[in-house]
Amino acid sequence: MTNQDAQARAESARSAEAVGAWHKGYLSGSRPDLRVPVRRVHLTNGTDLTLYDTSGPYTDPAVPTDVRRGLEPLRQNWITERNDTEEYPGRAPRPEDDGIRHTTPRGGELRNLDAVFPGRPRLPRRARDGRAVTQLGYARRGEITPEMEYVALRENVSPEVVRDEIAAGRAVLPANINHPETEPMIIGKRFLVKVNANIGNSAVTSSIEEEVEKMTWATRWGADTVMDLSTGRNIHTTREWILRNSPVPIGTVPIYQALEKVDGRAEELTWEIYRDTIIEQAEQGVDYMTVHAGVLLRYVPLTARRKTGIVSRGGSIMAAWCLAHHRENFLYTHFEELCEILRAYDITYSLGDGLRPGSIADANDDAQLAELRTLGELNRIAKSHDVQTMIEGPGHVPMHKIKENVELQQELCDEAPFYTLGPLTTDIAPAYDHITSAIGAAMIAWWGTAMLCYVTPKEHLGLPDRDDVKAGVIAYKIAAHAADLAKGHPGAQEWDDALSDARFEFRWEDQFNLALDPDTARAYHDETLPAEPAKTAHFCSMCGPKFCSMKISKTVIERFGPEGSEALTDEQVEQGMLEKSREFAESGNRLYLPLAD
Amino acid sequence: MTNQDAQARAESARSAEAVGAWHKGYLSGSRPDLRVPVRRVHLTNGTDLTLYDTSGPYTDPAVPTDVRRGLEPLRQNWITERNDTEEYPGRAPRPEDDGIRHTTPRGGELRNLDAVFPGRPRLPRRARDGRAVTQLGYARRGEITPEMEYVALRENVSPEVVRDEIAAGRAVLPANINHPETEPMIIGKRFLVKVNANIGNSAVTSSIEEEVEKMTWATRWGADTVMDLSTGRNIHTTREWILRNSPVPIGTVPIYQALEKVDGRAEELTWEIYRDTIIEQAEQGVDYMTVHAGVLLRYVPLTARRKTGIVSRGGSIMAAWCLAHHRENFLYTHFEELCEILRAYDITYSLGDGLRPGSIADANDDAQLAELRTLGELNRIAKSHDVQTMIEGPGHVPMHKIKENVELQQELCDEAPFYTLGPLTTDIAPAYDHITSAIGAAMIAWWGTAMLCYVTPKEHLGLPDRDDVKAGVIAYKIAAHAADLAKGHPGAQEWDDALSDARFEFRWEDQFNLALDPDTARAYHDETLPAEPAKTAHFCSMCGPKFCSMKISKTVIERFGPEGSEALTDEQVEQGMLEKSREFAESGNRLYLPLAD
Repeated sequence: MTNQDAQARAESARSAEAVGAWHKGYLSGSRPDLRVPVRRVHLTNGTDLTLYDTSGPYTDPAVPTDVRRGLEPLRQNWITERNDTEEYPGRAPRPEDDGIRHTTPRGGELRNLDAVFPGRPRLPRRARDGRAVTQLGYARRGEITPEMEYVALRENVSPEVVRDEIAAGRAVLPANINHPETEPMIIGKRFLVKVNANIGNSAVTSSIEEEVEKMTWATRWGADTVMDLSTGRNIHTTREWILRNSPVPIGTVPIYQALEKVDGRAEELTWEIYRDTIIEQAEQGVDYMTVHAGVLLRYVPLTARRKTGIVSRGGSIMAAWCLAHHRENFLYTHFEELCEILRAYDITYSLGDGLRPGSIADANDDAQLAELRTLGELNRIAKSHDVQTMIEGPGHVPMHKIKENVELQQELCDEAPFYTLGPLTTDIAPAYDHITSAIGAAMIAWWGTAMLCYVTPKEHLGLPDRDDVKAGVIAYKIAAHAADLAKGHPGAQEWDDALSDARFEFRWEDQFNLALDPDTARAYHDETLPAEPAKTAHFCSMCGPKFCSMKISKTVIERFGPEGSEALTDEQVEQGMLEKSREFAESGNRLYLPLAD
Repeated sequence: MTNQDAQARAESARSAEAVGAWHKGYLSGSRPDLRVPVRRVHLTNGTDLTLYDTSGPYTDPAVPTDVRRGLEPLRQNWITERNDTEEYPGRAPRPEDDGIRHTTPRGGELRNLDAVFPGRPRLPRRARDGRAVTQLGYARRGEITPEMEYVALRENVSPEVVRDEIAAGRAVLPANINHPETEPMIIGKRFLVKVNANIGNSAVTSSIEEEVEKMTWATRWGADTVMDLSTGRNIHTTREWILRNSPVPIGTVPIYQALEKVDGRAEELTWEIYRDTIIEQAEQGVDYMTVHAGVLLRYVPLTARRKTGIVSRGGSIMAAWCLAHHRENFLYTHFEELCEILRAYDITYSLGDGLRPGSIADANDDAQLAELRTLGELNRIAKSHDVQTMIEGPGHVPMHKIKENVELQQELCDEAPFYTLGPLTTDIAPAYDHITSAIGAAMIAWWGTAMLCYVTPKEHLGLPDRDDVKAGVIAYKIAAHAADLAKGHPGAQEWDDALSDARFEFRWEDQFNLALDPDTARAYHDETLPAEPAKTAHFCSMCGPKFCSMKISKTVIERFGPEGSEALTDEQVEQGMLEKSREFAESGNRLYLPLAD
């Protein structure tokens, strides 16, 4: 990635057309360095709507950003002043971290020096003296960290609620001490439903710069976390660029990189290689890691009768390893050791569902549920080490089997946050799986899932590009918000109400600016009525001026409903109607605006 | 519409890229003129999947079609041989039917002669001697009509089931005797969930030819019925073109045209003008009509306290009329007379929910539920006249209030088919309301809604164009099919299984051809792997060759699962695993294809 390119890309994300309509604001906390970003939508009626903001400093014109330097480490002081971590030299990066092997013709010592992240050098940190430096550890000791206060302001709840939910293991606050750039956020059913966007290159496609741009683009549209699922070249370096520039927690699936280190031969994987990869990523600042420790040897045969076998990449790698050695999954046998590493950096577990169903036919089968029970067991072990933990879920599930998934997960995993991929509610619509899965995602979130992993239109067909990332994020923001509404999350409906008010009052610009995607809403409107006056017109192209039900309806309200009609009794309204009807007839039955024009 | 244009448009729908992959087939009934079209997908493994087909003769290369002549009247013999209807001269078309007024500068007598439908002239038919010529009437007398046999073949159930569901009022078979071109279909919770696509011009946009093309295009992608909601010029003539070329039932909202006849002045509407419009449309062959007879005078004030008042066009027109006259809705007071007309042509009621909520805030409120109770009363009256009836539903409803809608409707309306618009599960995503509403649509259909009225991405912003129509239909086919799966509809999962089998076996062409939208699925795949060999590759661009979980998974199955592994007990599989694992190690741990390549 050349510096010029990188800057140009970042600028393009920063100056996305819609940013002009959204204004960066901050909520102040108890200390000067605790400022929580919000999106303020200025409305033409003089009011503001304040919304949750995931877009990071890129949307604040007052903050200079430079992708070559990375974001400011806003949590650095909070971490160091706790005085329970220490800097250390860290593991030296190696060529094979980027998939460059000694056996390649180019020579093993060569790295792509042009690609190496040039920003501020910083030594990695880890816990001192085996201390629990996790948010779970602090919460259990009754402490309210600045990170907890931050998310409390973000979610409009008390810091005590945040602390208690984390302490109970019902929520996680993924924040590796080596990712001080992250703006703290929380994942738990008590809070707003969150959305994760997957990005990442593969052996077949894409480059570092595209991945960094996808990250800023995804958070621009509302992604709460981003998973870097790269499997191709430059895995280490791509991740470094992403982490240093990411305002949201970054997740990974470390087994992907470990497999690269053994040239893709699953049977050559070892605990030592995996452990080395975990340390490497921990020092870089990965906030949460998917670990497929629940794919046990004895579960593998259960997948042989399936329609689509094992569809999780990590799950299939571990199954292949178990099969090759006829030994138990090394992630399972070394789980406690893994906990100790994660605890030293405050990395959150995302216990992977390696045996999730990949088709409607395989939903809720023995393989899936056997693994879920093991994840429940692992969740308890992780918690005993003060490691924050969430549980991954499916996948492909028909609607009538969705609820069982959440209920079982909540029961077996002591209400640990559930983090599901969709689920897709049918297999028949490749190219539209953002929709097949948004249906399942909305439902499963309503019933208690805390974070939704998006699915893009390219699922099953290819890697998402910039447009697919946006389509996936928007579909999932819809699912998440629909669930917030259904759960009765305080404040969720305020947004719908603001938009519906704007709609009913023909405030077109406000409708666009309040939309999840103002650019597209405006563009669709302008296709048929592009002229500026149409932006204030009391009708639209759907019905034309004389069929506008809202226009007619406003007349009804004006006739009956003086301000504060809410305060009237039914009898008063009934009486008012009689009077108004008389007035209406006397005035020549003229409606609000002439119905025919 | 010039003849050349019309033909060109029809050809474009006929030769849509994907048609080549789908093959028209027919199921034979008990008589030679009873042939039910199906879509056969030929798979590369030598099998066929047979799917429900709504696309009409346009996708049969053996049937010549000509939009200037219209489709063959396939039901004509069935109708005439029942010997209970008669031809009559009918109502002469008038200039104002097309919105051409005596007061226009062009002179009232002028009609757009170029636009007049040129096809085969045919006198309208109506019931003889006040007889009930409705499918409900026949079903109640125990008759199984050819139409019923047709839908029984289509739905793969016995004709008796069809007859009984219709007789009980739990299903409707909309088939005006003046629309003999229609391929019979059924709407009821016992059957496949159906999708309606709205089209129609407005005062602001679009032409006859565009509307005819939208109809063929919508049915091409799976629309089961089409509503023509035109409100602009040439309403009568546009409808004639659509009806004569439509293989699916056509619905309308007659009050729109009636309002055009009084120059858009709601207060000048009369029962006589409305009645004239009903006769006009009945003679043309409209299969079902939305009638807002439940918007009662006393309900209007209930909307004054709403966030978005009345959002149904028909509802707002009737509310304005009630308000202007302070009299009860004339559709309500003349309801029995209206029943007699609909009965004479076998037009199905779609009792409109004029007071449906237009925002999350207004869902399930007093106005909506008061009207629903009245629709229940009207449903009983319609049934007493042997008129088939379905009930329209919302609208905008948060997920947790959706189930109540179906349950109340089913209870209050004696299980008459429910026909809902979405519902949208949030207000915040204009430009994506096909998604906000597909979520609600899938859920409400699972719980018992029989037909879903689609919502396109342009909802709230503009009239749908060709692309929007397709996007809306596809989103709703997803919702409908997801509901069929969740309801356990026999045969529904066969489609998912066929696609998942193709996916697991890397039969890429089959995956595309089995997709709801093969064109887009293929295009997305080819974006990253366009070369022909990639169509048979055992991986895709998502993971690249060495991370393909399905490839690894197939190895697992091959190691354990001989054909018929379903027949093994768990113990046998466990034992088999031990043996296979040993073999695997002995063979050098080589997986299916080398994992690294």
